[in-house]
Amino acid sequence: MTVRNLFLLPGDGIGPEAMGEVRKIIAYMNEAKNAGFVTDEGLVGGCAYDAHGSAISEEDMGKALAADAVLFGAVGGPKWDGVPYEVRPEAGLLRLRKDLQLFANLRPAICYPALASASSLKPELVDGLDILIIRELTGGVYFGEPKEIIDLGNGQKRGIDTQVYDTYEIERIAGVAFELARTRNNRVCSMEKRNVMKSGVLWNQVVTATHKEKYADVQLEHMLADAGGMQLVRQPKQFDVIVTDNLFGDMLSDVAAMLTGSLGMLPSASLGAPDAKTGKRKALYEPVHGSAPDIAGKGIANPIAMIASFAMCLRYSFGMVSEADALEKAIANVLDSGIRTGDIMSAGSRQVGTAEMGDAILAEF
Amino acid sequence: MTVRNLFLLPGDGIGPEAMGEVRKIIAYMNEAKNAGFVTDEGLVGGCAYDAHGSAISEEDMGKALAADAVLFGAVGGPKWDGVPYEVRPEAGLLRLRKDLQLFANLRPAICYPALASASSLKPELVDGLDILIIRELTGGVYFGEPKEIIDLGNGQKRGIDTQVYDTYEIERIAGVAFELARTRNNRVCSMEKRNVMKSGVLWNQVVTATHKEKYADVQLEHMLADAGGMQLVRQPKQFDVIVTDNLFGDMLSDVAAMLTGSLGMLPSASLGAPDAKTGKRKALYEPVHGSAPDIAGKGIANPIAMIASFAMCLRYSFGMVSEADALEKAIANVLDSGIRTGDIMSAGSRQVGTAEMGDAILAEF
Ligand SMILES: CC(C)[C@H](C(=O)O)[C@@H](O)C(=O)O
Ligand SMILES: CC(C)[C@H](C(=O)O)[C@@H](O)C(=O)O
Repeated sequence: MTVRNLFLLPGDGIGPEAMGEVRKIIAYMNEAKNAGFVTDEGLVGGCAYDAHGSAISEEDMGKALAADAVLFGAVGGPKWDGVPYEVRPEAGLLRLRKDLQLFANLRPAICYPALASASSLKPELVDGLDILIIRELTGGVYFGEPKEIIDLGNGQKRGIDTQVYDTYEIERIAGVAFELARTRNNRVCSMEKRNVMKSGVLWNQVVTATHKEKYADVQLEHMLADAGGMQLVRQPKQFDVIVTDNLFGDMLSDVAAMLTGSLGMLPSASLGAPDAKTGKRKALYEPVHGSAPDIAGKGIANPIAMIASFAMCLRYSFGMVSEADALEKAIANVLDSGIRTGDIMSAGSRQVGTAEMGDAILAEF
Repeated sequence: MTVRNLFLLPGDGIGPEAMGEVRKIIAYMNEAKNAGFVTDEGLVGGCAYDAHGSAISEEDMGKALAADAVLFGAVGGPKWDGVPYEVRPEAGLLRLRKDLQLFANLRPAICYPALASASSLKPELVDGLDILIIRELTGGVYFGEPKEIIDLGNGQKRGIDTQVYDTYEIERIAGVAFELARTRNNRVCSMEKRNVMKSGVLWNQVVTATHKEKYADVQLEHMLADAGGMQLVRQPKQFDVIVTDNLFGDMLSDVAAMLTGSLGMLPSASLGAPDAKTGKRKALYEPVHGSAPDIAGKGIANPIAMIASFAMCLRYSFGMVSEADALEKAIANVLDSGIRTGDIMSAGSRQVGTAEMGDAILAEF
């Protein structure tokens, strides 16, 4: 029997509640479909800091590296606002991304028809929206050195971060974008600030060259990242796949997420390169939303982003395409039937809690 | 008689057309109100490159430094996409900002009631919107060194940019934000990525300390820049003054601009520190929109952003507050009367060209 190793890192805030609903789906798939999922669980973020003073332990890092896929909830909260920079909750997530070499972050911005009216944009601009943002995740200003605060004396300090991209890093993320575009509407828009950044100049050149050499069949457009942010708000449906760097991707994917009406709906996948021998990719799946400490522990959080992240896991880590499709369809069906958590509630719908939403999706699955 | 020295840099694309409408207003103010404006004009951007191979000449830089205020149109266009990085059109603008030490970029995002329906957001979310974004303009990743592309051999290159902020740079921009907040709704939201950037950590600390020391009467909030982008799209009216760094300011002010329904409407002011002796600030005023090469030379561009930039010039460089108010009111009145350029046209309005819009505003002034 196939064994599929999942390492669960629920994290802080609403992470554990959302993960609980995925656990139900895993149990069901094991029982009813013999899926062979074996799960282990660890600590990340603030809860890890509370337990042992770092944002993720070496032992848990080892388990994350060994697993077929990591499911990640959320990290952080006001409780840990004052902890030292090196052990802040986000450090756990950043270390996972870096050590697992998860360079490709896939962030779909999909607007479920049932929720088009929840967007702050006019419904006709977002109804049917389906963008895939490919964000580079292991380079750029997130990890470049020097990264430090220097004391200059005289009460002056200097904060420094370094934006660095090498040709191979741009090539491989562009490759992911072009490959995925071919499975969609065959269009890629690359975003950078080549008019002010040298890394943007290189980004633009390498994407252009990669396109010419291997993916000339895909339609490629370049846009300045600031203009890209505007266009996302103005006419989001103009985009198919967007490829951009770590920091621009952070900003732009959050803007894109908001267009869809609820952040509580959006999953993401972070993938490494295929292993030379086995062809397997390291992978981590996480909702785009944060830990939402204000509603944590109340049983009202929306588990859909976490469940949709598990659907991406089925698709990208285990090639279980029909199961992934079925799970995504179950989410859409439940929304169509008018069941809503508080964050996406609207007149005429039925408001439910986290567990009831999870159960409803499982029943449809 | 007071002499007021203006240096005009119309630049490329629609820049000259838009500037033409400001020239009419200047002439009128000189004749009818004895305003004493003396204007000189230079080249910047692509047209400067065509004329003498650089994005701005030393002579014109000298004039910009000597003037009381610089009025700037727009730079760039596909014609100059291939020119070397050092002399690309944007280099002229960046040099002006740096050499005039225009560290404070004021970008109001105002939604004229007459245009609320032109926004891609639901009208109730943007009607009456009035945000002021204060963007740091002479530091950060725009100017930090090293900034280069290194050849690593083996077909690999490395693109590097450096994000740097010193305490004093953050202090002075925070000061501008707090001062201006006091003239508005007394609220400042500071945005950075302290969870991944050391410059963000320092930014957060210095803004907090500046607030505590000198501006404790102003309400201060901190937000991560990615969350800030989301909140701008979700509920823009929650903000009064936003203060942020050069690159985040570039992105966030473009997103905010788009909320208002037309980029063609939005002005900006870039200010230096008050001179120790005279108290005068160096200043440059420019529309937020770009050079729009696709519609350049057709006489259809919207001159309102350029005219509103001149209103900011009256206010901030010459203390002509009532004239600035009157000019802004004239713009609002013309919009209320249903006169529109193509970019903001809607059913039931009367479409006019650049000159006719300028004339209508002048007639109301
Ligand atoms: C939590 C934080 C470090 C993270 C990031 O900035 O990448 C988050 O905003 C994200 O987008 O995944
Ligand atoms: C033209 C360009 C260099 C400039 C910038 O990036 O600052 C523009 O986008 C702006 O916002 O003024």
